[in-house]
Amino acid sequence: AVLRLHFIFLCSPTVFQNIGGGWIEAQNSRGEVGLVPEDYLEVSPVLASPTPLQPSNSRVPPPPLCPSPSQQTSNGGGDPWSAWNTDATGGASNNWASKPEGTQTGRSAAPDPWGAQSHPQAYQGPGKTGGNLGPEPWTLWWTANQSNRAILGGSRCSNCQTFVRLPLSRFPGFSKSGPELYLLAKQLVKGSQKLSIYMGEVGPVWSYPDNQLDCVVADPKKGSKMYGLKSYIEYQVTPNTTNRPVNHRYKHFDWLYERLLDKLGSAIPIPSLPDKQVTGRFEEEFIKMRMERLQGWMTRMCRHPVVSSSEVFQLFLTYKDEKDWKTGKRKAEKDETVGVMIFATIEPEAPDLDPIEVEQKCDQFSRFTKAMDDGVKEILTVGQEHWKRCTGPLPKEYQRIGKAFQNLSSVFNSSGYQGEATLTDAMTAAGKTYEEIALMVAEQPRKDLHFLMETNNEYKGLLGCFPDTLAVHKAGIEKVKEGDKLVATSKITPQEKVTMAKRVSTMSYTLQAEMNHFHSNRIYDYNRVMQLYLEEQAKFYETIAEKLRQAHAQFTTM
Amino acid sequence: AVLRLHFIFLCSPTVFQNIGGGWIEAQNSRGEVGLVPEDYLEVSPVLASPTPLQPSNSRVPPPPLCPSPSQQTSNGGGDPWSAWNTDATGGASNNWASKPEGTQTGRSAAPDPWGAQSHPQAYQGPGKTGGNLGPEPWTLWWTANQSNRAILGGSRCSNCQTFVRLPLSRFPGFSKSGPELYLLAKQLVKGSQKLSIYMGEVGPVWSYPDNQLDCVVADPKKGSKMYGLKSYIEYQVTPNTTNRPVNHRYKHFDWLYERLLDKLGSAIPIPSLPDKQVTGRFEEEFIKMRMERLQGWMTRMCRHPVVSSSEVFQLFLTYKDEKDWKTGKRKAEKDETVGVMIFATIEPEAPDLDPIEVEQKCDQFSRFTKAMDDGVKEILTVGQEHWKRCTGPLPKEYQRIGKAFQNLSSVFNSSGYQGEATLTDAMTAAGKTYEEIALMVAEQPRKDLHFLMETNNEYKGLLGCFPDTLAVHKAGIEKVKEGDKLVATSKITPQEKVTMAKRVSTMSYTLQAEMNHFHSNRIYDYNRVMQLYLEEQAKFYETIAEKLRQAHAQFTTM
Repeated sequence: AVLRLHFIFLCSPTVFQNIGGGWIEAQNSRGEVGLVPEDYLEVSPVLASPTPLQPSNSRVPPPPLCPSPSQQTSNGGGDPWSAWNTDATGGASNNWASKPEGTQTGRSAAPDPWGAQSHPQAYQGPGKTGGNLGPEPWTLWWTANQSNRAILGGSRCSNCQTFVRLPLSRFPGFSKSGPELYLLAKQLVKGSQKLSIYMGEVGPVWSYPDNQLDCVVADPKKGSKMYGLKSYIEYQVTPNTTNRPVNHRYKHFDWLYERLLDKLGSAIPIPSLPDKQVTGRFEEEFIKMRMERLQGWMTRMCRHPVVSSSEVFQLFLTYKDEKDWKTGKRKAEKDETVGVMIFATIEPEAPDLDPIEVEQKCDQFSRFTKAMDDGVKEILTVGQEHWKRCTGPLPKEYQRIGKAFQNLSSVFNSSGYQGEATLTDAMTAAGKTYEEIALMVAEQPRKDLHFLMETNNEYKGLLGCFPDTLAVHKAGIEKVKEGDKLVATSKITPQEKVTMAKRVSTMSYTLQAEMNHFHSNRIYDYNRVMQLYLEEQAKFYETIAEKLRQAHAQFTTM
Repeated sequence: AVLRLHFIFLCSPTVFQNIGGGWIEAQNSRGEVGLVPEDYLEVSPVLASPTPLQPSNSRVPPPPLCPSPSQQTSNGGGDPWSAWNTDATGGASNNWASKPEGTQTGRSAAPDPWGAQSHPQAYQGPGKTGGNLGPEPWTLWWTANQSNRAILGGSRCSNCQTFVRLPLSRFPGFSKSGPELYLLAKQLVKGSQKLSIYMGEVGPVWSYPDNQLDCVVADPKKGSKMYGLKSYIEYQVTPNTTNRPVNHRYKHFDWLYERLLDKLGSAIPIPSLPDKQVTGRFEEEFIKMRMERLQGWMTRMCRHPVVSSSEVFQLFLTYKDEKDWKTGKRKAEKDETVGVMIFATIEPEAPDLDPIEVEQKCDQFSRFTKAMDDGVKEILTVGQEHWKRCTGPLPKEYQRIGKAFQNLSSVFNSSGYQGEATLTDAMTAAGKTYEEIALMVAEQPRKDLHFLMETNNEYKGLLGCFPDTLAVHKAGIEKVKEGDKLVATSKITPQEKVTMAKRVSTMSYTLQAEMNHFHSNRIYDYNRVMQLYLEEQAKFYETIAEKLRQAHAQFTTM
């Protein structure tokens, strides 16, 4: 039966999911559904994830260099799952640590050195000490995969290990229609929720609500489905508006992210969710880390007036029951005001901008976000090295100093000389003090550097969204520049040219409101994280000094 | 003329010395004396040293594997100075850092890993920062040698680079006569100064003077001779007894060391002088370092009741004029109570010890000194690594953290957003704080670790003398054990056997007094150095914490 199933899967794997407990739920091309022991299949990261894979959705097409499953024969000529591996790339691109390096690649998951050297907590299991960095998700996956029985495939398609670029058409503003869809729309959507932009002290700003939305992500609980065969983690999300908790799994957050990206991504950078973890999903430390990052993501979304007031975000936070949630989901998925059309709902309450000013602003923000991206990456690199040193060689050295003092003390103790005790007691205490300092040094990064890293990691992710947002604007600007030519060749009417300039002005106001929103949050976040870092650092050194003073006091004053 | 001189030197180099200023004073086998420019000769460490070389003294014979100068031809077949290089070995053996590893090798200069990795100040010039270790003297010498014009030699004798074992007969107690010279002496020296040993609270103790002798080594001055052609450094030594300074060059200290070693070395461990430096003798930092170490050596000698009361030591500290000094020198060099005969001047005021107790004490001290030697070396190794880290990678990392904060701050400053200044000013200040911390970290080892290292280095040298001292005792013990056999074979009389046991008891009292002296000094020294270390460490961390608090205060309280 197993062999038959294999054969069926090799021929046409359509839908299957890992339901946990060592079982895979699978459906073949003939619509037959059944459970297959996990060990009999090569497990791709998607299989390991609770999120059902939907190849028909073709969110991530197979890499061009790999034969597609249908091209493969069943006699071991290739790895039928190789195409599916690409979804792991999608997962990796969800990691805040990885971001597009250039503006042209869109949200493709380019290999990122930081992604592979994330500070330890991101990938390490609870058993590990901070000293060694966890492997990056890819490594984890390959290792896991190789330790499983590989029945299905023969030689592996080596190209499948490379990262895959997502097609540009996937992203709003990168389709061939691009911002033109909005710039040249005959009639803008009516009756839709309008988004206002005002002139504030700092320039264009979004209309902020009187009461800041906020929510708490807490209380992760293991839930199960399918008669206990399938288990998952559910988080409790409590908004400050209703104070009524709702439960959400990671895949719900992911769904929300997708909706926000579709709807608002052209105008507002929507940061990726924390990465999908491949192994050790239920390890305590991982769950804590994911919750912390989901909290960070939700807080950022709550703080954004456009996101927080959006219907889909409100649904996520305040759905009443399962039926309400499902109805809301269906509605949100049918929403047609997506991509660049979001600009049609924006109403700047200020005079139109000159195209030159539009371009200047766009370039200014482009330069700033690039420079900040570099600055943030520098901190991450330096912090990563410091993390390694603080959890590796440095505490080892303090420990060795401590041991050396204690060893000498015990030698002294063997002298047989009278009046030795005061010195040997004091030296032993000094040695123990250095051992304590060693522990403190190794633990410290989790207390301060961690938050500095997390904040910068978050900003790296956020900054990584700007190239796309800015590209939409640049495409709009280029279109307006072509205006005269388009009129001359009768591609557009003179009236349409005027409309385009007006709409590109709206896009620029949006960008400026967004940048001002970014700046004010950035100032708040960096103020807070720097204060926390310096406060913890000062405490750390004060504690060490205090311990040393106590050790010092044990020696005889002469 | 130059070529002719070369030829003469190659044939029979007898006596020459570096008189400084680039000139070598040399005498050929025909007794002709003249000055040769230094650059025309390969400079051996001896040449670079102001101490005149006396090959006829043969204190250090040429290494057995090297052809002696007289065996070499003048046509470039070998390096005529190779034999002389061995004196550099003698210099290296004077380094406190190098010590005999085993008891059998006596004071030979075995290669010592610590010797080659001494903490930086020992060998570094003033221009260097602490980050890199200075090369060990050998390396310095070879480098210097290779950069000079090598006119004289052809291929170098590679064996000459190895260290040379000094003959055992060089050391008291290792000569074939050994302690028997004392144990079986018919008549002990009369009228010589007597050294008393009393029973104190802790056991046998030397008779200590009421007023502790002390001296200050200070005020190093460059002096010159030979019409300014020869220059040297003279230190001012002021004893607390006369408060009248006397001047001494390093070579005078070395002469004193040799006299003390000859006279007292069988009973009292006489630590070596700080190492002879080959290059950069006049560099400020080296002079300061040597002075500090000479001070340490003199302080230790002053503290020893037998050393400090010895005639030669008193001469060194209180000679009245040049004539007085020269007369005293001649007298000291003629002193016949040297080697094991020092025991003849010792009078323990306590009943004779049983040979079994003598052996137990000897073994106990042997174990203790070995264990302490290990403990001290561990601290030196760990300290050395810590020194490297504190002056190398660690401050670099703090500097990079500081730079990263400042860079991000300057990016923020370019945002064009209002109200940015408070954050950017605070972040710049935080960045500068980390740069200051980097400097503090790099400077700190000189303030605390330095003294911990110096003290342990000093003890390593001192402990390295014990194997010889203990070997004299062990040889005595063995002789007494053979007593019955020697009487039976009429090698000694029964009376001589009794005398031997009595005299070995005197040796044991000496060892015990010496160990008790060692213990009491050790407790004092380690108490002091640990206090200093912990005090400076606590201050260091307090200062860092304070700086961080100040940096913290610049951020906006929210």
